[in-house]
Amino acid sequence: MRQLLHHLHLPTRGRGMHAFTDAAADWLRREGAGTGLLTIFSRHTSASLLIQENYDPDVQADLERFFARLVPDGDPLFEHVLEGPDDMPAHVRTALTQAQLSIPVEQGRMLLGTWQGLYLYEHRRAPQQRHVVLHWMGE
Amino acid sequence: MRQLLHHLHLPTRGRGMHAFTDAAADWLRREGAGTGLLTIFSRHTSASLLIQENYDPDVQADLERFFARLVPDGDPLFEHVLEGPDDMPAHVRTALTQAQLSIPVEQGRMLLGTWQGLYLYEHRRAPQQRHVVLHWMGE
Amino acid sequence: MRQLLHHLHLPTRGRGMHAFTDAAADWLRREGAGTGLLTIFSRHTSASLLIQENYDPDVQADLERFFARLVPDGDPLFEHVLEGPDDMPAHVRTALTQAQLSIPVEQGRMLLGTWQGLYLYEHRRAPQQRHVVLHWMGE
Repeated sequence: MRQLLHHLHLPTRGRGMHAFTDAAADWLRREGAGTGLLTIFSRHTSASLLIQENYDPDVQADLERFFARLVPDGDPLFEHVLEGPDDMPAHVRTALTQAQLSIPVEQGRMLLGTWQGLYLYEHRRAPQQRHVVLHWMGE
Repeated sequence: MRQLLHHLHLPTRGRGMHAFTDAAADWLRREGAGTGLLTIFSRHTSASLLIQENYDPDVQADLERFFARLVPDGDPLFEHVLEGPDDMPAHVRTALTQAQLSIPVEQGRMLLGTWQGLYLYEHRRAPQQRHVVLHWMGE
Repeated sequence: MRQLLHHLHLPTRGRGMHAFTDAAADWLRREGAGTGLLTIFSRHTSASLLIQENYDPDVQADLERFFARLVPDGDPLFEHVLEGPDDMPAHVRTALTQAQLSIPVEQGRMLLGTWQGLYLYEHRRAPQQRHVVLHWMGE
């Protein structure tokens, strides 16, 4: 058995989805990963991970509109407003999506479907430096 | 260490939950899997995976009613309507649930709770052919 | 390769978030786990797992208020009321969060971010005995 660990630093431009499928695929290729399991882990509570449609950019805009309506910034329901009106909504959005994804890898290739892309979903309005851990285990 | 990889093809009858607990358990048994980790991965962005109550069918009907109210088909919020009024809602439902599940396996048996079943949640109205990857790693 | 399996029994005091980061970290230390992958699996359909902000208790109160508004107890939408008005909402909340989390471990330490804590989210109003499986695989 072999293991690989990698720290991916993703600067975001503020709220929205940031694709990193290629960064993950390139890393697996560079390291000569074979068949195994890739786990992607976000170290944040105000940004999350999503597998989403990678073709029509309208999907990302619609997703964002949906979350903005479901968890409105500045909602008077929230008392945790230390970092502004998007602070608590960012935690709720993270709870409703994922902090971690695991993807089977066959002969070095993630077994993603044709329309699946990997995204970091930034939930804060301001740009952030995000840190995602990639772990691969296999043969 | 040993690894197993399997492609499960699940035809759906349209929107709703499709149980596949037995298919996963049978595969582990057939392959003589021991103790390890099973990862289930859906290759779609308009269908997802869920662990849910496996006893009372009302639970599935109630879940579907909840999601239909939360993410209504034909919502004017959505611009991505290429494949109809259930296209974008299917992506949102997938984002709110899971594309992947990992389950510890002990001596060939998934450590599911008594009331837990594995489901593919089809979010499109029309029947589809769905493709789920099963990956097991262990000893 | 080495594997470890542990059954964690968590008594809850009813609805709300119950931290177990220390219990998981202590177990890894006790067993001398090295670098690998930790998978945490909840065996329930009315309680779930969450990685959330571990600093300000207001975050947990706000999260609970959000879910109570999104999935109200006693909602006439629901027919599955066998165990009371919080029965079906507990299943929906579980579907919207996670039954499983996997976390990369480096030299015995989970690679959690500074503000990330592990929580069992109890969705039933009454106290329960919950059962979470910890599985570690690595070297």
